Amino acid sequence: MGKSRLEAFSDGVLAIIITIMVLELKVPQGGELAALGPLIPVFLSYILSFVYIGIYWNNHHHMLHATQVVSGRILWANLHLLFWLSLVPFATGWMGENHFAPVPTALYGVPLLMAALAYRLLQQPILAKHGRDSALGLAVGRDLKGKLSLLAYVMAIPAAFVSPWIAHAVYVGVALAWLVPDRRIENVLARRAQ
Amino acid sequence: MGKSRLEAFSDGVLAIIITIMVLELKVPQGGELAALGPLIPVFLSYILSFVYIGIYWNNHHHMLHATQVVSGRILWANLHLLFWLSLVPFATGWMGENHFAPVPTALYGVPLLMAALAYRLLQQPILAKHGRDSALGLAVGRDLKGKLSLLAYVMAIPAAFVSPWIAHAVYVGVALAWLVPDRRIENVLARRAQ
Amino acid sequence: MGKSRLEAFSDGVLAIIITIMVLELKVPQGGELAALGPLIPVFLSYILSFVYIGIYWNNHHHMLHATQVVSGRILWANLHLLFWLSLVPFATGWMGENHFAPVPTALYGVPLLMAALAYRLLQQPILAKHGRDSALGLAVGRDLKGKLSLLAYVMAIPAAFVSPWIAHAVYVGVALAWLVPDRRIENVLARRAQ
Amino acid sequence: MGKSRLEAFSDGVLAIIITIMVLELKVPQGGELAALGPLIPVFLSYILSFVYIGIYWNNHHHMLHATQVVSGRILWANLHLLFWLSLVPFATGWMGENHFAPVPTALYGVPLLMAALAYRLLQQPILAKHGRDSALGLAVGRDLKGKLSLLAYVMAIPAAFVSPWIAHAVYVGVALAWLVPDRRIENVLARRAQ
Repeated sequence: MGKSRLEAFSDGVLAIIITIMVLELKVPQGGELAALGPLIPVFLSYILSFVYIGIYWNNHHHMLHATQVVSGRILWANLHLLFWLSLVPFATGWMGENHFAPVPTALYGVPLLMAALAYRLLQQPILAKHGRDSALGLAVGRDLKGKLSLLAYVMAIPAAFVSPWIAHAVYVGVALAWLVPDRRIENVLARRAQ
Repeated sequence: MGKSRLEAFSDGVLAIIITIMVLELKVPQGGELAALGPLIPVFLSYILSFVYIGIYWNNHHHMLHATQVVSGRILWANLHLLFWLSLVPFATGWMGENHFAPVPTALYGVPLLMAALAYRLLQQPILAKHGRDSALGLAVGRDLKGKLSLLAYVMAIPAAFVSPWIAHAVYVGVALAWLVPDRRIENVLARRAQ
Repeated sequence: MGKSRLEAFSDGVLAIIITIMVLELKVPQGGELAALGPLIPVFLSYILSFVYIGIYWNNHHHMLHATQVVSGRILWANLHLLFWLSLVPFATGWMGENHFAPVPTALYGVPLLMAALAYRLLQQPILAKHGRDSALGLAVGRDLKGKLSLLAYVMAIPAAFVSPWIAHAVYVGVALAWLVPDRRIENVLARRAQ
Repeated sequence: MGKSRLEAFSDGVLAIIITIMVLELKVPQGGELAALGPLIPVFLSYILSFVYIGIYWNNHHHMLHATQVVSGRILWANLHLLFWLSLVPFATGWMGENHFAPVPTALYGVPLLMAALAYRLLQQPILAKHGRDSALGLAVGRDLKGKLSLLAYVMAIPAAFVSPWIAHAVYVGVALAWLVPDRRIENVLARRAQ
């Protein structure tokens, strides 16, 4: 079973998700600078979500690069991940249009949390197929960053009801932690090539 | 005639269909949790349709994997399948926004039925080109699951007028029956490899 | 210069055009069958345009299959073709929502005419690069079907003001003439393989 | 690290950006020719932006064609470029719907300027990896056209407040200067092949 169509389909869906989000930036009526004012929170939400989808694309790219075999279970685990990511544009729009109100801010964490769980569910059968001492297995290791991200989302969602700004700080912080591309796989592959 | 562009184009269309459906989840005005209430049926419809498009992508992926030659007839049979699948977002939105009323529930079955027929029309010339004892031919066999699905849709559409819940049960049931990825082709290929 | 990205980008744009058109089928408010009535002309227009985009994808697929070299001029000629095809969803929506009124029916012919001209402009440098006795050159020959289609569009546009039905008959007729996949290239390639 | 997924994802995003812009051409209510009048500025803006996205796709295609290695930094520099290009449809719609008013015309230059800067940021690590006397390094040279374009945007944005027509002249002029496909890379590669 080739992985090329899995990559192509995922690339397509992620490309559309990232581009559909920009449709929430609705062209305002007036032509003055002031007309852009109410769009600022929507724009900030867009930036955050763009970075998140970019992170997922990047890590997905690395993980599948190290994958050799694709099974039916991996195909569905991948679709499950894409499902939660497909809800990011909706959560982004709702949070932005309500100027970072508590409930939409909390809800924004839900697809992030679920996508993080889905990513782990996708990683599992791939790791199982390739073994703990494959390039991917060594690179992921105990996956501390993945586990801490899950914990961060779980805490950010209720914290949004105390103050949305705590949740925003967590969302931005987790994104920054992942923005550093996942060099673990690159490193292991490079070490092996020596 | 290569099959790679056929796969690429189908992947593109299916990726867009699956992502466009999420646009029916329109960002609500208010920022309270109650604002999400009316979206629940739309969300449930989205999940069901996401699974259906995922099933078609999965089976399409398997069928074309076993295909070696692509003819003009296969190109058009494929476009015909994509046509009916492209109507799924409309049917999903109509059923969801009308809270599973009888007529939209019945109509939801129409693109499903037509896509199932179109899938068989696509399978036919591929099987004819590869022969009944090709990997694909052996895997599909008498295609009992395909035939029973057709029968299920044909019965669900009128049943929606009696009670929409009968139709929903059928739609969910057929989806679950296919969610199990079509291992028949994988099995035959694996057996051959031995 | 590889042609794979040209194919991938064209596939992407054509896949999006074909799927964006379905968004003109706007989900109606009511849940009765009668609510679908006003959508019938939009649906019929959608079918026609789906077939046209399908024809372009099919012929584009065949033409590039026979192409070996891609130049800067070919890249732009291809973008020019995609530009006119990208206006088909707009023309489709306008014609459908105005129930096949004369002006929208005439205007529907404009992107079709311009896309047909753009296709010839794309074919020219490809033919020039490959020579008149290449597989593609022999297959296209004097390109009678291409020239007659141009003539048909040129006559259909003013005829829509006399009666839109003349124009519709021409649009459907040309589509049917091309629905037969362009076997010329396949035939020449098959003859050469002997 | 292969570059094929980077190309595929970029092609997907650019294909969607170029096609989403056409959605700003909203189907008018009436069916008379006069109903198309207010759409003319939107249509002109669409043509300009279509050409710009086409230029970026073309140059991106050439640059990556000459690239052999892809790093994490290149992946993010590429996403950064796509981010600014994803704002072009919004800027296009705002400028078109406000009939080329000063503020939207000035703002139209912002994503163009930022995308031009992002393109340079993407070019840098690629050049660094391949060396100044690689095919790409020789082809780009001192990149005078790139630097002059940046200068042109920087001047056009404030000039729009004096008269939008100055800015439009600059935007069209820069587009025309780039419409000539970037033969520098093709030339160097051709010279090497001798």
